[in-house]
Amino acid sequence: MLVEKKVMEIPAFQTVSGSRLTGVRIGYEVYGRLNAAGDNAILIPRSYSSTSHVAGKYSTTDAAPGIFDSVIGPGKTLDTDRYFIVSTDNLINVAAKDPTVTTVGPSSTNPATGKPYGMRFPIIQIRDLVNADKAILDALGVKKLHAVVGWSMGSMQAFEWSVAYPDFVSRVGALLPIAQMDGYTVAQLDNWGSAITLDPKWNNGDYYEGPAPTDGLTRTLNTLHITQRSYGWGTNLAATPSKPDRSPASSWDAGFAAVANMQAASAARTKVFDANAILYGNRAMQLFSVGGVATLEEGFRPAKAKFLIVPARSDVLFFPAYGQRAVEALRKNGRDVTYLEIDGTGGHFDGVFEIKQATSALRTLLQ
Amino acid sequence: MLVEKKVMEIPAFQTVSGSRLTGVRIGYEVYGRLNAAGDNAILIPRSYSSTSHVAGKYSTTDAAPGIFDSVIGPGKTLDTDRYFIVSTDNLINVAAKDPTVTTVGPSSTNPATGKPYGMRFPIIQIRDLVNADKAILDALGVKKLHAVVGWSMGSMQAFEWSVAYPDFVSRVGALLPIAQMDGYTVAQLDNWGSAITLDPKWNNGDYYEGPAPTDGLTRTLNTLHITQRSYGWGTNLAATPSKPDRSPASSWDAGFAAVANMQAASAARTKVFDANAILYGNRAMQLFSVGGVATLEEGFRPAKAKFLIVPARSDVLFFPAYGQRAVEALRKNGRDVTYLEIDGTGGHFDGVFEIKQATSALRTLLQ
Repeated sequence: MLVEKKVMEIPAFQTVSGSRLTGVRIGYEVYGRLNAAGDNAILIPRSYSSTSHVAGKYSTTDAAPGIFDSVIGPGKTLDTDRYFIVSTDNLINVAAKDPTVTTVGPSSTNPATGKPYGMRFPIIQIRDLVNADKAILDALGVKKLHAVVGWSMGSMQAFEWSVAYPDFVSRVGALLPIAQMDGYTVAQLDNWGSAITLDPKWNNGDYYEGPAPTDGLTRTLNTLHITQRSYGWGTNLAATPSKPDRSPASSWDAGFAAVANMQAASAARTKVFDANAILYGNRAMQLFSVGGVATLEEGFRPAKAKFLIVPARSDVLFFPAYGQRAVEALRKNGRDVTYLEIDGTGGHFDGVFEIKQATSALRTLLQ
Repeated sequence: MLVEKKVMEIPAFQTVSGSRLTGVRIGYEVYGRLNAAGDNAILIPRSYSSTSHVAGKYSTTDAAPGIFDSVIGPGKTLDTDRYFIVSTDNLINVAAKDPTVTTVGPSSTNPATGKPYGMRFPIIQIRDLVNADKAILDALGVKKLHAVVGWSMGSMQAFEWSVAYPDFVSRVGALLPIAQMDGYTVAQLDNWGSAITLDPKWNNGDYYEGPAPTDGLTRTLNTLHITQRSYGWGTNLAATPSKPDRSPASSWDAGFAAVANMQAASAARTKVFDANAILYGNRAMQLFSVGGVATLEEGFRPAKAKFLIVPARSDVLFFPAYGQRAVEALRKNGRDVTYLEIDGTGGHFDGVFEIKQATSALRTLLQ
């Protein structure tokens, strides 16, 4: 499936925190066709480190298709012959330097100064991401979402959709789900970002005219990488040195293959990730509690949709317990909820690489 | 129970990596009395961030007793009326700046230069910790260990004891166990230390004559703190701001109570922890595979002891799967192994705070 990146401009956007942004340009992709009633749309809110490119290739020579291509396309679980699939780059996308991404965030030019915002960009919340996608869906003519299906940070948006626009959302698929932050995750997210702010090149976020805090960003991405994995990773990699002729038992100038693999993956991502955007993404997640209230039960009260909740059993980022908390709160509100755990030892990544375990449940949700 | 810190000097010590250390002074504590046969001793190898102070108080005015006081003492699970309990500060103790700790490591003076070793101190392995404790036990007249009972990094030593000195060790209690590194844990440990090496004050480990890399060390200890917890932490702390009059939704100058709590705990520990010693402790763990060979089954072949393996169910540092791998390898070698999981949502910390769940099994092991 060949797909095309498009850009939508939202003329004026008011953030939850009270800031006003103008001329907000956001990249998006659509697959399939919107029906006349405007009610066959499925939104895939972006996850933390993904973009609107969730399916297909831009060109036949692309190395890999969009991240959820295995479930999106003609005849697939999210069938583009039946549904109008929409995904957007949204605000504060961490891949701000990716040439295929159009987003607004700390690296954007502040029209008031003509310079990048840096950490003066307004703090963005999950509800803001929902509202930005709502503006795009409205402009595309979508009258009702057949479903919103989100992974990880996308699950937060999916949950928030169900209570922000309860009459607009018929079904919610929340994979690798979390509906409310706890202290553990708040601290975990602080920890991700802390290597960035420790790097002297970060310079309180004003690094756009000099060298980027690449060392700190690399370490942040290492943390992200580990937290997305689990005990199934690298049982054969432990004692393998990164340099075959040097032993990490005798020299600090030698390390381990597992670390080198991780660092290479992170270094590649530093080319497209903006360090400040990581901090904004973390803060958005840290602030999240569905509906913006203290308890999950109260937060889910406005919801009218049908729900599918799918954590991964070995996930140590968004633990299955988080999905179970959402199930409990939804059931107390009388909602129809299906719960399924993806089995495996791959951690958070199982939500992507083992998604085939959830396709049958996703099909049932969409019926 | 009032206890006393003592110091043993090992005149000459050869490391596994081939370095020779002289005049190695190591702090230790003993509780109970060694019997005439010298065979009623129980060794408690230190864990990563603990010291030889595992029970009792130095003075009646101490705020808290040693870390495993709940199970060590007269009539307790590790009964000091019957057993001679030994614990040591060992080499490369991370709490090198704690005045009650005596250890040798990167902050020690290199006799060849009269200056601190820094990162020129030899790389230490788990087997070295075992050998140092063996020298101390020999000097104390211990002929045989009734048991070695270790938590976390202490479990590595307990396992290594069973194959390094199989005729010396009758029973092994391994709590929060890991017998062989995998890529996940190797990368995780790299991640702990990476904030230290990112701090410009670290200066390649030569900071002893200037300011210590306290910012980096604090962040490292934050990572340690999170990794030792799990999804049971802070369900009520998420949205709580660190400053009651500022909202983290509107200002970067405001954060979350969970982060502030963690940072305060870490900041306190920076007063006694040496940053380089963290790197040495991490490397020792990263290099670990029981018996120094590639497979667990081969590694455990020399073992003769009886084993008790006790992971904590929600531990995301040393997952229950790691304990299960050890059980499988031991059983393939025909060893008598009891396996018990500590139930809870507190993560690695459950191995300390929920140890009462394992006391009955520990008593059975010691019979």
